[in-house]
Amino acid sequence: MAEQTNLLSPFESLVMYDRYKFVFTAKEAESEGVTEPIKLPKLIRNAISLTRAPFSKYKVGAVGRASSGRVYLGVIVDFPGLPLHHSIHAEQFLVTNLALNSEKDLCELAVAVSIDGKEFNTPCGHCRQFLMEIRNAPDIKILLKSKHEEGSFSSLGSLFLDRFSPENVLMKGSPLLLENHDNCLVLSGSAGEICSDCSHLECKALAAANNSFSPYTHSPSGVALADNDGIWYRGWYIESVASNPSLGPVQAALVDFVARSKGKGFNKIVRAVLVEKNDPNVSQERTAKMILDTIAAPNCDFKVFHCHVNLVKRMKYLRDRFVID
Amino acid sequence: MAEQTNLLSPFESLVMYDRYKFVFTAKEAESEGVTEPIKLPKLIRNAISLTRAPFSKYKVGAVGRASSGRVYLGVIVDFPGLPLHHSIHAEQFLVTNLALNSEKDLCELAVAVSIDGKEFNTPCGHCRQFLMEIRNAPDIKILLKSKHEEGSFSSLGSLFLDRFSPENVLMKGSPLLLENHDNCLVLSGSAGEICSDCSHLECKALAAANNSFSPYTHSPSGVALADNDGIWYRGWYIESVASNPSLGPVQAALVDFVARSKGKGFNKIVRAVLVEKNDPNVSQERTAKMILDTIAAPNCDFKVFHCHVNLVKRMKYLRDRFVID
Ligand SMILES: [Zn+2]
Ligand SMILES: [Zn+2]
Ligand SMILES: [Zn+2]
Ligand SMILES: [Zn+2]
Repeated sequence: MAEQTNLLSPFESLVMYDRYKFVFTAKEAESEGVTEPIKLPKLIRNAISLTRAPFSKYKVGAVGRASSGRVYLGVIVDFPGLPLHHSIHAEQFLVTNLALNSEKDLCELAVAVSIDGKEFNTPCGHCRQFLMEIRNAPDIKILLKSKHEEGSFSSLGSLFLDRFSPENVLMKGSPLLLENHDNCLVLSGSAGEICSDCSHLECKALAAANNSFSPYTHSPSGVALADNDGIWYRGWYIESVASNPSLGPVQAALVDFVARSKGKGFNKIVRAVLVEKNDPNVSQERTAKMILDTIAAPNCDFKVFHCHVNLVKRMKYLRDRFVID
Repeated sequence: MAEQTNLLSPFESLVMYDRYKFVFTAKEAESEGVTEPIKLPKLIRNAISLTRAPFSKYKVGAVGRASSGRVYLGVIVDFPGLPLHHSIHAEQFLVTNLALNSEKDLCELAVAVSIDGKEFNTPCGHCRQFLMEIRNAPDIKILLKSKHEEGSFSSLGSLFLDRFSPENVLMKGSPLLLENHDNCLVLSGSAGEICSDCSHLECKALAAANNSFSPYTHSPSGVALADNDGIWYRGWYIESVASNPSLGPVQAALVDFVARSKGKGFNKIVRAVLVEKNDPNVSQERTAKMILDTIAAPNCDFKVFHCHVNLVKRMKYLRDRFVID
């Protein structure tokens, strides 16, 4: 096998190069030139080439580093046939990708808008607000606008003053977006045990819903998608303290799809399951169905399963979390 | 009649007091205590009492003054059955109300979140971005967070640094949100003349679409609604340079509905017309239908009419606007 690799022509090596790569280990990032945080822009071109924004002028790409050392890409995703408020911004994509990969934080972030990846930008107001769901968000270092490939960082906090934050609202000790949390949901009508190693899309959507971040309306939800090759993807609802920047579970699952499907079109999505509570404060069902009706395969099978909180499990979870001495 | 008014009991006077008032003349505002901009909070309680946010903890109200001297209220509007990204923030409501009333600017803005109207806030990131569509937005004075009823103002620009603005993208001289603009649209299949003084809902939606602000995707649209008493309302799509904070035409028409229907429920909406281009870059149809299916009267009649640009009129409009010497 090693010999075979050695025999690859330069063209074949190029073919093997994964251009659909959204997550880089520290080592991989280094081999792309990201030897230190200020070099994050070295991966901006990659991000911009992966945007899916057919009707936006702005090919927005984002590159961010977590304290694990891994580097993540985020890209703008627009949906033909749907208004722009359903779109996923590059920074939202990146943050969702962090959540889906169990990262605990975001240290530095670079955003660019142009094809050549040299016109840096800072997150728009919508994204600055969305980023606030991360612990210590004001300390996230944002690469400032600059025509130079190597600019300088400024803190999110200093760019976004007198802001509305989760801390203004949540109980002290409540987990934030990238922190461990378990919604302790079970499928309604089931015995309550999650199948292990099953192939039920609803079980994957349930697992996603258990990671959902909905501390403001207590309406967790998750979506699992399957493509034409039987590969599955999942994502969960991420709520913003300021309502509108919240990211729906379909959008979150589409982040997983875009990040792992190697360039497949949304019309390769053939099955979808939404798991949410019965009669939740915030219901995703109609909007989820409409989005999938618009972008997925014409005959995409869409099912909704309801869930509820396993109170015994939840009480134990809360007791473990908020220890009462 | 004057005698009858004099005979009103205190209770009857109270009944006559219009608690569903979203626009105040300078004189009316003064009689409510708004004798100078720093007194805008005197109307915050009014705004907070008019919010329609059944599942949001935050009863967000906004009060703003235009250079005309008129004072406008804005309120948060949530839609049961729809995710939060369809919501209308209080500041978006207020700006839309300014647009619907042909105001040209916004000078000062106060925002509060609590029932007693004493806990001031500043616009969230989503709204700071939305406000950028107004000319000289960085100069808008925002009342700072404060427990005191009379706080101090800071400019939007100083609260929202290194921002993404329409000026980064639009041609110099392009009208911004609150400035005169005419999309020169005519209903497809019509003779091209707008009926004057007609009762066609599609003509009202067309007139709205002609005011629509869509300089980024060139997808203007308008919505007209009629309620059970035959009163009509209209609003137009307002686009944000940052995509997601864009406000759909249904939401804009609902601003008009909330502002003028004296507390009617959305289920009193019995007819709706959307006017948009045939095959636009950004299509509102599916989302508009879904929103109305969810909140309007169960048998609400929803129709879509297509329009196109009257090129002769548009060329003349552009020639008048961008005079070539
Ligand atoms: Zn953004
Ligand atoms: Zn299973
Ligand atoms: Zn807001
Ligand atoms: Zn007519």
